[in-house]
Amino acid sequence: MAEAPLYERVALIGLGLIGSSLARAMRQGKLARHIAGHARSERTRNKALELGFVDSIHADAAAAVDGADLVVVCTPLGTYAAIGAAIGPRLKPGATLTDVGSVKQAVIRDLGPHVPDQVHFVPGHPIAGTEHSGPEAGFAELFQGRWCILTPPAGADAAAVERLAELWRRCGSMIEIMEAAHHDQVLAITSHLPHLIAYCIVGTVTGVEEATQKEVVKFSASGFRDFTRIAASDPTMWRDVFLNNREAVLEMLGRFSEDLAALQRNIRWGEGDKLQELFTRTRAIRRGIIEAKQA
Amino acid sequence: MAEAPLYERVALIGLGLIGSSLARAMRQGKLARHIAGHARSERTRNKALELGFVDSIHADAAAAVDGADLVVVCTPLGTYAAIGAAIGPRLKPGATLTDVGSVKQAVIRDLGPHVPDQVHFVPGHPIAGTEHSGPEAGFAELFQGRWCILTPPAGADAAAVERLAELWRRCGSMIEIMEAAHHDQVLAITSHLPHLIAYCIVGTVTGVEEATQKEVVKFSASGFRDFTRIAASDPTMWRDVFLNNREAVLEMLGRFSEDLAALQRNIRWGEGDKLQELFTRTRAIRRGIIEAKQA
Repeated sequence: MAEAPLYERVALIGLGLIGSSLARAMRQGKLARHIAGHARSERTRNKALELGFVDSIHADAAAAVDGADLVVVCTPLGTYAAIGAAIGPRLKPGATLTDVGSVKQAVIRDLGPHVPDQVHFVPGHPIAGTEHSGPEAGFAELFQGRWCILTPPAGADAAAVERLAELWRRCGSMIEIMEAAHHDQVLAITSHLPHLIAYCIVGTVTGVEEATQKEVVKFSASGFRDFTRIAASDPTMWRDVFLNNREAVLEMLGRFSEDLAALQRNIRWGEGDKLQELFTRTRAIRRGIIEAKQA
Repeated sequence: MAEAPLYERVALIGLGLIGSSLARAMRQGKLARHIAGHARSERTRNKALELGFVDSIHADAAAAVDGADLVVVCTPLGTYAAIGAAIGPRLKPGATLTDVGSVKQAVIRDLGPHVPDQVHFVPGHPIAGTEHSGPEAGFAELFQGRWCILTPPAGADAAAVERLAELWRRCGSMIEIMEAAHHDQVLAITSHLPHLIAYCIVGTVTGVEEATQKEVVKFSASGFRDFTRIAASDPTMWRDVFLNNREAVLEMLGRFSEDLAALQRNIRWGEGDKLQELFTRTRAIRRGIIEAKQA
């Protein structure tokens, strides 16, 4: 006898890289009996139907969540408050509401007030992505071997959290449970600062004189290229990340700027031993990441 | 009839990632009749013999260049002046002296004075590498499809330059001829600044509180990881790059710091439109690099 799906009806609010990948993974794993999709743009809705990763498509977010056991918000963080207001009243008692946003305190702030008492609110964040966006960019294997962090509020229903964790596990992910504030700090370090720096350096490099521009592209393989991939990530999503994790990002940015000023001084004064000490230390970190099988 | 080798005898001063890769590529392409190798450390000399990519090995750099038609210096920039003093008097009239260093004006400054009149001095820079170092890390295909920049001084012997260019072409590279000062500016932008920023961010991130360290490695795939690869490059080589291209690196670093301060202000004041404008612009650059087949 075939195993019963984990959820009867799942609603995906947003069908970009993450939403469409989750749909594909759920379909592949037979994790939901019905996948309802919502996207704001008609182009995305048509694309979703054409690619066939949803069972029904809805121009209205509230209509998409009707009768859903699980609702996953997969849109940029800046849309959460409006989406909460639209879908909150239509959420089914006993349903679980989650999301995939890169900042978690802001999600609790923006979605939280709209969640009815009988709905389980379990914010989530799959640490997965590529520099491509949109429903065509998704693929079922995106979450394989990647971490998914859940930040259930104190007193959250254990069964609801576990069922959601099981969904991600069946998509190939490993689960970590964390407090939202701690999540935002850790991700500011491992993800938000690196993306900000990548965006900044690509901006600086491409701001050089026109005459040099062609050579910058031509010789980009010497280091610059690696930053351009990161700095090609979705602009709206990342704008919202920085605006919604402001304090933690500014704190890390402050530390980085101090370190950069020190490095600049080392170069100006020819302090080779200090440079070498740093470069030797950073090399060791790479080994740690390789050993943790995250390389 | 088999084609004659391009050079009768090639001496490689330094047998790390680049030197040993060049030896392997020359051997594979039958580009030299004899490859003489020099390395300062006994361990490297033994490794080179064991791996078999040289025909003779020499503890003394001057002995290695005896009778060589082509001498390639493949050591960190900081060693060039001493190497020049050691090998200069032993260079064969009519021989070509080149190198693979990442900065070219410093090479002319440090090696130049030691080059006898009848020796052709043609500094070079293959834009190729990995984050691994040492004779074991080399491989014959390293230069395939990559640019090699040559910076012959005004009045250089055209035949000598062309023969060296042909060597790199047969190793799979494409040739660009450039003035040394221009090379140093372009590489400060495309390579030196990106490496410096990568080293800095890895230093900052790994400087956070002990308690968070494990999570930094665990969730490094969210962006940080990509920087750690670049920041795992050879510490001595990179120390020497920054010390020897100081002015151009400091100039680019100044621009980057200004841009970062502006970005910091955008985040603090919630200027989402400015963030999105930058992130959209940087995304377009990636397309240019993909179109130029350098991705």
